[in-house]
Amino acid sequence: MEMWLKEAQIEDAVMTYKVKETLVRKKTEYQDLAILDTNFFGRMLVLDGIVQTTIKDEFVYHEMITHIPLFTHPNPKKVLVVGGGDGGAIREILKHPSVEKAVLCEIDEAVVIECKKYLPEISCALDDPRCEVFIGDGIKYVHEHKNEFDVIIVDSTDPFGAAEGLFGGSFYKEISECLTDDGIFVAQTETPFYLPDVVKKVFNDAKETFAITKLFMAAIPTYPGGYWSFTIGSKKYDPENANLDTTVEFDTKYYTKKIHKSSFALPKYVEDLITK
Amino acid sequence: MEMWLKEAQIEDAVMTYKVKETLVRKKTEYQDLAILDTNFFGRMLVLDGIVQTTIKDEFVYHEMITHIPLFTHPNPKKVLVVGGGDGGAIREILKHPSVEKAVLCEIDEAVVIECKKYLPEISCALDDPRCEVFIGDGIKYVHEHKNEFDVIIVDSTDPFGAAEGLFGGSFYKEISECLTDDGIFVAQTETPFYLPDVVKKVFNDAKETFAITKLFMAAIPTYPGGYWSFTIGSKKYDPENANLDTTVEFDTKYYTKKIHKSSFALPKYVEDLITK
Repeated sequence: MEMWLKEAQIEDAVMTYKVKETLVRKKTEYQDLAILDTNFFGRMLVLDGIVQTTIKDEFVYHEMITHIPLFTHPNPKKVLVVGGGDGGAIREILKHPSVEKAVLCEIDEAVVIECKKYLPEISCALDDPRCEVFIGDGIKYVHEHKNEFDVIIVDSTDPFGAAEGLFGGSFYKEISECLTDDGIFVAQTETPFYLPDVVKKVFNDAKETFAITKLFMAAIPTYPGGYWSFTIGSKKYDPENANLDTTVEFDTKYYTKKIHKSSFALPKYVEDLITK
Repeated sequence: MEMWLKEAQIEDAVMTYKVKETLVRKKTEYQDLAILDTNFFGRMLVLDGIVQTTIKDEFVYHEMITHIPLFTHPNPKKVLVVGGGDGGAIREILKHPSVEKAVLCEIDEAVVIECKKYLPEISCALDDPRCEVFIGDGIKYVHEHKNEFDVIIVDSTDPFGAAEGLFGGSFYKEISECLTDDGIFVAQTETPFYLPDVVKKVFNDAKETFAITKLFMAAIPTYPGGYWSFTIGSKKYDPENANLDTTVEFDTKYYTKKIHKSSFALPKYVEDLITK
């Protein structure tokens, strides 16, 4: 028997992955959760039929969503991740020696439980003493914590269904209040090739709140189009012109100082999206 | 009836495109040629089952394989394209006012004929008086022309089958002799994510011939992994530090001066491939 996961990138372009084994498949309170094993990509987390992360290429997303803001901030001590129940962002955050506390606020406890069980390479830092895992609504959590975090990372699923409230102007205002006076916000903000209107709206929403708002890109093979946008909003430090001279050294597979700066160079069609 | 094109990115990851209409399908002397119509990507050229170019995203590949070398060279007059029978590279080359002659050397006349018929947006410049279309073997053409071209672009299919001879050390030496003393060579060199060994070998082969050899990247949605490498070999001018102050202005959808420089910033795993 051959099993293939079919993932529609758009209606008429469907990516398919041959599945060796379904390690877990369950309806959680919030979504359809599966962890599948594949030959080339290894194990992958799939939520509502969409590939979230794979052992083979997770490093791109997790390095870029964390190291860009954390190397921009001169001394990040407290970091909040909204979503990101797989733990990959937390693992990267805790490589920064300045970080004293990293809070993971994930709405769906099942994601944390299953990723701890089946994706230990990604979830390995969730038991670190500097990490606090809070199961609950990110919007509520952000609303109830003011002036507390140096960096807030929104590591969410797509802006449809459960994560819809994590995209848009009112949430970004709450995030700004949850940040310290020189805090930095970053979010995954989808594909400019397939969803240009989403990128445009989210960027303009963030721009209304943050003094410095920029878009940066990373090449993620298992995400539709292979080229993903992140929106970063900063109160004080310009992430594109961050001082990286004193950057601590640790092993990476995607991020470098040169990649940090160059990820803000946008293809003309992406630049036009957010400036026109 | 539903028709889907299935394109294996790797054995276990297969991209599928819903086909509205098959405009042409034929066995040429060299390959299985099809031009298909799709909803999102528009018409696409498919050779031996592999998507070569689509109306929707061809701009990325064609701008990047041409404007990087042509804006690096201070005064490119004669340009050779090996392969590239769709004409997209020629179209972009002829936007440079310094170019007096652009030769297209394509082995498969059927590609030129069918692209002229069905992909006029891409092939439109093949009838320009500055363009000479030569149907024949690129290896032979390069061997028979010495010290003639300022820029040579190898716009080939994958390094299996018909195009195999267009990758590797002996061809790069011939290319070097076909170039003028300050000439520049560029080739599409596959995906570092799926085919790291190909990228490594091709880069090292080119490095043996050219004084300055670099890799640059572009995000092409319909190419496997979405992130493509190009190897550039130059006798004199460093493409990464090219003087872009006097760059002529014309409309682009991907290339910008900032993209020119930043496309040489490689993810750590790609950098390691070509330096270790």
